[in-house]
Amino acid sequence: MSPEHPLYLDHNATTPVDPEVVDAMLPYLREHFGNPSSGHPYGRRALEALEEARAKVAALIGAKPSEVLFTSGGTESNNLAIRGTAESRAERRHVLTSVIEHPATRLPCDALEWRGWRVTWLPVDAQGRVRVEDAARALDPETALVSLMHSNNETGVLQPVSEVAALARRHGVTVHTDAAQSVGKVPVDVTALGVDLLTLVGHKLRAPKGVGALYVRRGTPLRAVTLGGGQERSLRPGTQNVPYAVGLGVACELAGRRLARGLAEQVALRERLWTRLRVSIPGLALSGEDAERLPNTLHVRFPGVRGSAVLDAAPEVAASTGSACHEGGETASSVLRAMGVGEQEALGSVRLSLGPETSAEEVDQAADALIRAWRRVG
Amino acid sequence: MSPEHPLYLDHNATTPVDPEVVDAMLPYLREHFGNPSSGHPYGRRALEALEEARAKVAALIGAKPSEVLFTSGGTESNNLAIRGTAESRAERRHVLTSVIEHPATRLPCDALEWRGWRVTWLPVDAQGRVRVEDAARALDPETALVSLMHSNNETGVLQPVSEVAALARRHGVTVHTDAAQSVGKVPVDVTALGVDLLTLVGHKLRAPKGVGALYVRRGTPLRAVTLGGGQERSLRPGTQNVPYAVGLGVACELAGRRLARGLAEQVALRERLWTRLRVSIPGLALSGEDAERLPNTLHVRFPGVRGSAVLDAAPEVAASTGSACHEGGETASSVLRAMGVGEQEALGSVRLSLGPETSAEEVDQAADALIRAWRRVG
Repeated sequence: MSPEHPLYLDHNATTPVDPEVVDAMLPYLREHFGNPSSGHPYGRRALEALEEARAKVAALIGAKPSEVLFTSGGTESNNLAIRGTAESRAERRHVLTSVIEHPATRLPCDALEWRGWRVTWLPVDAQGRVRVEDAARALDPETALVSLMHSNNETGVLQPVSEVAALARRHGVTVHTDAAQSVGKVPVDVTALGVDLLTLVGHKLRAPKGVGALYVRRGTPLRAVTLGGGQERSLRPGTQNVPYAVGLGVACELAGRRLARGLAEQVALRERLWTRLRVSIPGLALSGEDAERLPNTLHVRFPGVRGSAVLDAAPEVAASTGSACHEGGETASSVLRAMGVGEQEALGSVRLSLGPETSAEEVDQAADALIRAWRRVG
Repeated sequence: MSPEHPLYLDHNATTPVDPEVVDAMLPYLREHFGNPSSGHPYGRRALEALEEARAKVAALIGAKPSEVLFTSGGTESNNLAIRGTAESRAERRHVLTSVIEHPATRLPCDALEWRGWRVTWLPVDAQGRVRVEDAARALDPETALVSLMHSNNETGVLQPVSEVAALARRHGVTVHTDAAQSVGKVPVDVTALGVDLLTLVGHKLRAPKGVGALYVRRGTPLRAVTLGGGQERSLRPGTQNVPYAVGLGVACELAGRRLARGLAEQVALRERLWTRLRVSIPGLALSGEDAERLPNTLHVRFPGVRGSAVLDAAPEVAASTGSACHEGGETASSVLRAMGVGEQEALGSVRLSLGPETSAEEVDQAADALIRAWRRVG
């Protein structure tokens, strides 16, 4: 820890790349540079690596390799899922989503609304969770798509995706889940979930920024949004990023091994952090306290102070007050507001997100730093 | 050279990554992993690197850093340029493009046509070059966009972009050029060209596959196509691929230095290859012989045989018969057909594209191998 290297508790914003992932990518950045569409040995070697990587990504989520498309990341995957479904199912003109989605889901749904689609924005309860009965009521014969995130990026609260998917599939509705924050942190299986489309993102699971995937269940109607060459079954044209695809494959493999060891250790560490903080900070609130949450995510609300002030006073800790992907002014998080948290209280938010190599010692140091900071600014 | 490492003369399909580029990226794959949108030191360091890279890309093409958006590659850049312009200039409903564009331009223009836009597909002359007078005739008050490639990926023939841009700008038309094949190979300056939008692609200039940029002249109307967070001025949302942006920046810097040394060496090497081939292969044709071409590209037509047969018989050489991005069956290249080359003759095509470290010895070996192959199959 140093001023330039504070304790990193912002793994929901982005993760370090696993050293094994970097090592696996390097040969494809150095000697194996071929274009996977080329017929010569350079191209064939690149293609083999790409397909091996695809199989590894598929394995982590219980998919077939042919059901995995490589993309440039979560934003592209979500846009393809939502717009690609809308364009291929234009006979239905209703989308079901929630008020707590990432902008990469919310804005494409907004755009459909402007184009005359009906969009139902499901609310969440005080725990930050969509209610299945609200989804049940909103589904109708015009519904083309449900897009519901697997877990919320701010609170870490898991959403009832499989329950909603089961209802939606009875109506012949395509089901998409943005599992950007979940894949690699909790088991995610496309069959158990019953989804048709699933977004996963490299830089949330220790692969680099700039690569992701979209799972597309065989037979799911989907039209390309970006148009060009025939790559990725013409659904995502453009020369594939072979090194990062290789990296994503290895990251998925490593995540699978971590998940096989269970989640208890990560949960224990998160609870250790929570316990330390709450005994010293009276009135500290835990978002989604009674909900199932990602094992690595602790979203707290400091009483009577801004989360940004606490973090400014705790330079030993790198964390976030909202979603790092779209930080701007000091407006309260819409996710917290949707949970019924008041404006001022919501501004007290700090998200602490752990990584697989966060240690108990780091957790203790971070807790001490945050407590000191709170005392200073509180 | 070995069966697994044939002489690589397919630099228009993709290039090896420059070792200096890999070295520059590595710290951003290893220690500096922050999300450039994060406010803490990890984020700030990533943001600094991103902006430094942006300045380097801008410098190569004579742009301001704020006019450069990072994308995932040429396909995305072209789609954003074409669809983003169409969506922001819907009061005009005409696009001017050419019949020799890459699918990443052709297909978005096709899509506009399906949506009721008028698209003028400019033909080319026997040299594979668009005629300025055809463009002049096609421009009208309804024209929203001209999209004309800077050089053709197959023949390497340079297109009259600055001449067409000058005409188009008089009509208030937005001008886009896909300079994927040109940037790094010949001087490309956005002011000299007079374009508003320009596509450049990392993996064509010794940066990795999966990164590109779109130059957007200040004040150019453009709407985002992919929707999400606020990155890249909200025109290209999604967490930026910092390592590859850094790599693209360094690749542009290196390309600038190569270009400053002039093009004579590369042209001499290409001419050496051409001379060797033509003295031994009577009837060998050179596509775009009388046109200005990329210094690295030699597109030849073998008489009476298929290009694919020649390449199959010359496993010592890795090259392409068409565009590696979308190879499929044995249908003649539409670019060659548009030049008036007959179906059978067009099938004799082989594109030989050199790189900055291709040596005279390699050129001679490649020529010998191709001549032997032609004798065997001819």
